[in-house]
Amino acid sequence: MQNKLEIGILGATGMVGQRFIQLLENHPWFQITWLAASDRSSGKVYEDAAKWRLDTPCPERIAKMIISPADPAGAPKIIFAALDTDIARDLEPLFASAGCAVVSNSSAFRMHPNVPLVIPEVNAEHLHLIEDQTWRKQSGGYIVTNPNCSAIGLVMALKPIQERFGIEQIFVTTMQAVSGAGYPGVPSMDILGNVVPFIKNEEQKMEEETLKLLGHLKGDSIVPLAARMSAHCNRVPVEDGHTESVSIKLSRPATREELLSAWADFHPLQGQNLPTAPAQPVEWVAAEDRPQPRLDKNRGRGMAATVGRLRPCGLLDWKFTVLSHNTIRGAAGAAIVNAELLLSLGKLEPLAVAAAAQA
Amino acid sequence: MQNKLEIGILGATGMVGQRFIQLLENHPWFQITWLAASDRSSGKVYEDAAKWRLDTPCPERIAKMIISPADPAGAPKIIFAALDTDIARDLEPLFASAGCAVVSNSSAFRMHPNVPLVIPEVNAEHLHLIEDQTWRKQSGGYIVTNPNCSAIGLVMALKPIQERFGIEQIFVTTMQAVSGAGYPGVPSMDILGNVVPFIKNEEQKMEEETLKLLGHLKGDSIVPLAARMSAHCNRVPVEDGHTESVSIKLSRPATREELLSAWADFHPLQGQNLPTAPAQPVEWVAAEDRPQPRLDKNRGRGMAATVGRLRPCGLLDWKFTVLSHNTIRGAAGAAIVNAELLLSLGKLEPLAVAAAAQA
Amino acid sequence: MQNKLEIGILGATGMVGQRFIQLLENHPWFQITWLAASDRSSGKVYEDAAKWRLDTPCPERIAKMIISPADPAGAPKIIFAALDTDIARDLEPLFASAGCAVVSNSSAFRMHPNVPLVIPEVNAEHLHLIEDQTWRKQSGGYIVTNPNCSAIGLVMALKPIQERFGIEQIFVTTMQAVSGAGYPGVPSMDILGNVVPFIKNEEQKMEEETLKLLGHLKGDSIVPLAARMSAHCNRVPVEDGHTESVSIKLSRPATREELLSAWADFHPLQGQNLPTAPAQPVEWVAAEDRPQPRLDKNRGRGMAATVGRLRPCGLLDWKFTVLSHNTIRGAAGAAIVNAELLLSLGKLEPLAVAAAAQA
Amino acid sequence: MQNKLEIGILGATGMVGQRFIQLLENHPWFQITWLAASDRSSGKVYEDAAKWRLDTPCPERIAKMIISPADPAGAPKIIFAALDTDIARDLEPLFASAGCAVVSNSSAFRMHPNVPLVIPEVNAEHLHLIEDQTWRKQSGGYIVTNPNCSAIGLVMALKPIQERFGIEQIFVTTMQAVSGAGYPGVPSMDILGNVVPFIKNEEQKMEEETLKLLGHLKGDSIVPLAARMSAHCNRVPVEDGHTESVSIKLSRPATREELLSAWADFHPLQGQNLPTAPAQPVEWVAAEDRPQPRLDKNRGRGMAATVGRLRPCGLLDWKFTVLSHNTIRGAAGAAIVNAELLLSLGKLEPLAVAAAAQA
Repeated sequence: MQNKLEIGILGATGMVGQRFIQLLENHPWFQITWLAASDRSSGKVYEDAAKWRLDTPCPERIAKMIISPADPAGAPKIIFAALDTDIARDLEPLFASAGCAVVSNSSAFRMHPNVPLVIPEVNAEHLHLIEDQTWRKQSGGYIVTNPNCSAIGLVMALKPIQERFGIEQIFVTTMQAVSGAGYPGVPSMDILGNVVPFIKNEEQKMEEETLKLLGHLKGDSIVPLAARMSAHCNRVPVEDGHTESVSIKLSRPATREELLSAWADFHPLQGQNLPTAPAQPVEWVAAEDRPQPRLDKNRGRGMAATVGRLRPCGLLDWKFTVLSHNTIRGAAGAAIVNAELLLSLGKLEPLAVAAAAQA
Repeated sequence: MQNKLEIGILGATGMVGQRFIQLLENHPWFQITWLAASDRSSGKVYEDAAKWRLDTPCPERIAKMIISPADPAGAPKIIFAALDTDIARDLEPLFASAGCAVVSNSSAFRMHPNVPLVIPEVNAEHLHLIEDQTWRKQSGGYIVTNPNCSAIGLVMALKPIQERFGIEQIFVTTMQAVSGAGYPGVPSMDILGNVVPFIKNEEQKMEEETLKLLGHLKGDSIVPLAARMSAHCNRVPVEDGHTESVSIKLSRPATREELLSAWADFHPLQGQNLPTAPAQPVEWVAAEDRPQPRLDKNRGRGMAATVGRLRPCGLLDWKFTVLSHNTIRGAAGAAIVNAELLLSLGKLEPLAVAAAAQA
Repeated sequence: MQNKLEIGILGATGMVGQRFIQLLENHPWFQITWLAASDRSSGKVYEDAAKWRLDTPCPERIAKMIISPADPAGAPKIIFAALDTDIARDLEPLFASAGCAVVSNSSAFRMHPNVPLVIPEVNAEHLHLIEDQTWRKQSGGYIVTNPNCSAIGLVMALKPIQERFGIEQIFVTTMQAVSGAGYPGVPSMDILGNVVPFIKNEEQKMEEETLKLLGHLKGDSIVPLAARMSAHCNRVPVEDGHTESVSIKLSRPATREELLSAWADFHPLQGQNLPTAPAQPVEWVAAEDRPQPRLDKNRGRGMAATVGRLRPCGLLDWKFTVLSHNTIRGAAGAAIVNAELLLSLGKLEPLAVAAAAQA
Repeated sequence: MQNKLEIGILGATGMVGQRFIQLLENHPWFQITWLAASDRSSGKVYEDAAKWRLDTPCPERIAKMIISPADPAGAPKIIFAALDTDIARDLEPLFASAGCAVVSNSSAFRMHPNVPLVIPEVNAEHLHLIEDQTWRKQSGGYIVTNPNCSAIGLVMALKPIQERFGIEQIFVTTMQAVSGAGYPGVPSMDILGNVVPFIKNEEQKMEEETLKLLGHLKGDSIVPLAARMSAHCNRVPVEDGHTESVSIKLSRPATREELLSAWADFHPLQGQNLPTAPAQPVEWVAAEDRPQPRLDKNRGRGMAATVGRLRPCGLLDWKFTVLSHNTIRGAAGAAIVNAELLLSLGKLEPLAVAAAAQA
């Protein structure tokens, strides 16, 4: 344990905070040493402040930790942030200014021109933006973000196709799980046996994040993918796992076999040994009625995007279904693999080492 | 009651058969006098043969009726058919040959060039096809069909827009209720807390039926709408009510207000007083998170299509959500209003009167 | 409309408030003329303040009403109260002091020795307690309550048995719908595909209310039924309708036929013509797998208790299942039928007439 | 792998068969070498014959195995049986006669006087009955059964209490998951947002199995526990995990602390190192709203019974809630741990070794 880097969690009591704790327990590189939450929870023992909602028990060591105030003083230099957008807008810069690497799951800075929005398998090179952040220049700190839970599975499925054939148009209708709204989140009266065809700001986020993620770095900025896109976002009575019906128009024609190969061959992180990255980022499931959230959300320990039902589209070129686990691949797991990538690129250790030296 | 026309139900024990019974109880024009089902049920008392699954009780008179064999001998001349496709393919022609008006909810003959596929509010003039049916010429009998439960709400929402602005492209993703698969239908293990992104043959049916319904009569045949269309069909854990995310490309530009007016002004059956037709076939709901199956499926006593969330589409022109009750508007109610239209056009009474004369 | 009594609703925006509005629309005796809610809603138009959650539309006239402050000044003299317990504890006496008949659904005063806890079919004579209330003596006002949603169906099923055979022991396990917790109420993360074996204070309320309801009036007080009772309360993923597994020990032996007769013959309100009272308060359903919330909750327009599965108990004498609609019979409908009973007993009109005279 | 004992699965394609495969993958003692199913499946490749419904993938090796006919010829000598009762009644004796140890999950022989019904933590000594079986005497083969999924969690929770304080009366109401009915099992139309207060024969099975399990061996037969018991069995919309509300009357008084100690101290298999047996067979969860199927079913890798909400009962002495995973602890896992116990007692190896010698 002495070789692990100390990390902190901002927003540790919420659903995504709990997933961070679950996924970081036994992590080979990182060790949770600091938990922060709202003023209401600060000073309390974690198990008293958090209503643990996961189906594995809260690790005993974490359960007994005292929740710190959300202040960089005393915090480790690597921070996983799982904050509501409004709070993130204030707090994340505070931690970045104080020299922390803020690996954020919030939407506050995802579309900021200097903040990388990253999926390691998709656009690791966007991390270059970090170096232009004022915080980085002043304190060494920075902010890195991962996408919205609805965008991440889609983009993982699109990336290998875009690389080989180009993508010009994207249609997507989501059927999103309730855990995406946190806890207490969606009232049961709203969603039991029901569909809610609306998630606030979700369609806009999904569209702009997708194009930024699939964009390319040009000099010091990201040129979004020049594709047209339309998203319909719906909430369905599913606990975990976002299912998405997708249609795409390609730049160059592709056969079904070529598309399947693009997915099968997609191993952009091969050889990097990031502990949380799945061996097969995009998994194909051949059965005609798959993927399904109940059966497929945990593929790649919840880190894979599962695709199925590839067939010609009457309007664009191809259509398929993609599924990903919204609180693992779509939230906490996304941030953790981002941190693993940052560490492998040498962008975490100096901070942590410097902090250790100060201590 | 002596003035009501006698009708029979083929497939009376299934989910759609039960809806026929529920909706025809107290119907001002029709009176159920004959129930038929599979050989297994034939000869039994209805309440013993059917597992009644509706939340209003089975009418006492019906509960005690004896189920007849599925044979035109002894059947009335107006038949509502709620049969599985394979059985419908054999039985419906048998009844049409025997001089019955077969008002069918099955998919067996929907795409047959001489069989009208009709929604009264949308394409009543397609009923002209009846006169070309061989059965009609020989015995007076004929087959009329209503569309698949997933097509009907969509087409009702599209028709007023098509009339005013033309439609060139249609995108739709469905989130369909389990009752659409009948009983026992979808196993609970498959759908509790889950989404199944596949319904056998549904996408093809939805696409071809939509274009036939929106097509026009030219001479003795239907010219389908010359639009391109793509459907993604999904099953969700909802009891009743299909929700659909729709995007469309118009032939002529339309503002939001013009589209809302097209829906509001759509009263094609005004003055016809069909008892089951809703006063407002397409209902607009303004709240940003509607329509929802739980809250909106029963509008117009389950016979309206409810639309909401109209907004610009990043890929085509406009997008919106439409909802309709799949076993009322999408099945039994659709057939009943077809029969009402046939009666108002004088295409039922002669048969029934002739039958009465024979009797 | 000029002959109807004016009534007000305290707590009009919540789930039970909405049910009051739904059930009182077109009521032959009462007319809603006043709506009150929390300070947050006061002064707003109803449709802006309330998130309407019922599957019939909010009546247009109500939707446009302005919400009044929760103050007796300006309120009508008949008040339906659907308040949270803590607020009811303060507000209901305020209205009773001001001369209002407060027909309450809250738990605040149910166990108060001078406050009648009434189900018209069960213990109408308990209304005598009203006359001992200080408010009654001073201003004419009073408080009448109806039971908890979990107690009401049980007590309706037990009363006819108690009358004929006596009841000495009662065992009940509830499986309660989410609407019992109001809106937003139970988070979907807690209940989708889950059971929560705990509802705060519910078991105690259910036990003590049941015994008070089945008790008898002796002089000026209620002697609770001298039975022993144990309740287990659980929440299940059902929208409306509480299902309860019940076992009972009788004072005198009864055959199955005698118990069925007790239920069938139970018509304590016969001839009183209370508009909301069901013709058959306790409905027996013979099928071995009933009652079920989905299929049976609306019997008697949601006002009946449905019983089924009567069979010998290995421990006590008999066991059965009872179901009732928790927000109709178990809440708003219970209060409305209480008010109807009060009116038929002459305990409402003087107040209202006096108020009319003042106006 | 060469040291593992070869086992076969009868009924390998159903839900319990799939659980056997999932739980035996990587088992340290057993190796699946034979799969059998109905005639319809026999001869097919497993992945073509079975509709895999678990959320971990079917092991590749198993997916490619050919399904054998359900005939002892060619089968290994250790058979896990997951058959429907009617089929089990014929097939299990056939395999026992042929010298197989049939470790059965079916109900066919559970109440047979010579067949042990065993939970290793509860009544391992009942295995003595094997030696009286005719099959055993003739061929070495025998049948051992595990209880119904609703009885097993209850009995695990009761056993430590019975040992210390005696149990005289047992009340239980179950809320059972749909997976208990297999696949396709419960239609979604029956259970979505619903409760079904009936499971065929379940109450009788639960009552008689509980008393046999808690009974003692006297000479060559089992004397059931002399307690009175009543079970109410309900189906709820939960995928996995049976929740049960329990009340008990003790022979000797016990405090809350004594009951908690009885559960905490219950380690009857300590030192036996059965791989599938949970370290803590009865887990106590202190939170007032637990256990819940979603959060607690996987305790002890699905092999523990979780208890909570211990409180005094108004009718008997104590009441509490117990939860267990119905297809792991309640079915496949129960049989596997039975087989582990049999092996540790030397009742498996001779058979298998003899078989190996024959081969």
